[in-house]
Amino acid sequence: MKKEQPKKELLLISTSTTHGTGYLEHCEDEIKALLQDRKSVLFIPYARPGGISHTDYTAKAKEAFERMGITLTGIHEADNPVEAVEQAEAVFTGGGNTFLLLRQLYAKKLLEPLQKKVEKGMPYIGTSAGTNIAGKTIGTTNDMPIVFPKSFDALQLVPFNLNPHYLDPDPNSTHMGETRETRIQEFHVHNSQPVVGLREGSMLRVKGEKMTLLGHLSARVFLQGQKPMEFKPGDDINFLMEAY
Amino acid sequence: MKKEQPKKELLLISTSTTHGTGYLEHCEDEIKALLQDRKSVLFIPYARPGGISHTDYTAKAKEAFERMGITLTGIHEADNPVEAVEQAEAVFTGGGNTFLLLRQLYAKKLLEPLQKKVEKGMPYIGTSAGTNIAGKTIGTTNDMPIVFPKSFDALQLVPFNLNPHYLDPDPNSTHMGETRETRIQEFHVHNSQPVVGLREGSMLRVKGEKMTLLGHLSARVFLQGQKPMEFKPGDDINFLMEAY
Repeated sequence: MKKEQPKKELLLISTSTTHGTGYLEHCEDEIKALLQDRKSVLFIPYARPGGISHTDYTAKAKEAFERMGITLTGIHEADNPVEAVEQAEAVFTGGGNTFLLLRQLYAKKLLEPLQKKVEKGMPYIGTSAGTNIAGKTIGTTNDMPIVFPKSFDALQLVPFNLNPHYLDPDPNSTHMGETRETRIQEFHVHNSQPVVGLREGSMLRVKGEKMTLLGHLSARVFLQGQKPMEFKPGDDINFLMEAY
Repeated sequence: MKKEQPKKELLLISTSTTHGTGYLEHCEDEIKALLQDRKSVLFIPYARPGGISHTDYTAKAKEAFERMGITLTGIHEADNPVEAVEQAEAVFTGGGNTFLLLRQLYAKKLLEPLQKKVEKGMPYIGTSAGTNIAGKTIGTTNDMPIVFPKSFDALQLVPFNLNPHYLDPDPNSTHMGETRETRIQEFHVHNSQPVVGLREGSMLRVKGEKMTLLGHLSARVFLQGQKPMEFKPGDDINFLMEAY
């Protein structure tokens, strides 16, 4: 029996807001291209950046999507969040705290419904924490563990981990905290999956089994036991989509 | 019945190494003052900074303590780690990854033995991750969640949380990741205990129920629902030792 073609349509964005541009402005064209003729998006506000309420966060996201001619509703408004996912044309998960986001997804039993819909071709957009949870685990988040989720296992829409807001070491820093690269190398002492460091302004576009890097910057890719590699937009990064 | 006097002897150090000084150099006098005439220290190397082995990490710590005339042994060398804690004159927990450290403490069932010894007056020294775990939870660590511990609850030697390597916002930064202060304020949306941001070079010295800030810099204290406060060395910070 021939394996059915995967239909994944993902847009994994490093940050919602780049320096000097408005909310979702730098990725508006890519979001429109992903959504095509879809007219509505279900918003997952659980990550609550800065502790903002679900309502206030949804209002902010709504404004940005309305600019693109798309209706947005917050999942917290639904009586049954699982049904809301099942009926969604597309899902957008906003940034904030990754631990809080994942804990809520577990509490509301939303991981499996989201995975199923994505397998069937429903577009998924994530920014920051929303991008983080698309990976295998949240083990490479930059966030503070402000709440305890029942597991670090995430949506696993891609077979690697993500590090949004990837930051290069500052050569002038006198601070003794670990660099991002050191942290990811520590991760690889205990975990084998690749890690993609997505700099601000970068995005990963997944279409079926193919993946491309969008934006102007290169991405830093960490494979266990190997030197970090840089890939530019246009480079072939499909090897990352192969199962590990 | 009169409550027995608490005998806690803690030295909670932000970082093992400040810019321009060697390992444990900036806090050597404070360590000596804490240990007094004790001649041996049990070292907990579980946090493995940069993925270093327990053996290599212990060798590094051994060198620093030998300079002070103190014998240091790594807990990983003991057949029975719980017994090693029970017999220890003093314990030093080194920095590295807080999640890894706490997971190991749970796996080896060391939390309760450590708490009991500290209650009886055994000196405890922590740097970075080793300081983090002295707090109520590890919910304000800066580290990556590279492994999953069974709980974020920590040793609770003090009734607040710690944020070592506390970093002030960089006014020139164009990076969109959250500042440390924003992260701690997000923590306070979901948790009520105070958080002490310890800048590099700072230490907290706990003696019974009294606590003093050592080093040259001020510490930033976050109370739920209040504006952050700055306390200088010499200021009265004993209110933080009251139960919350």
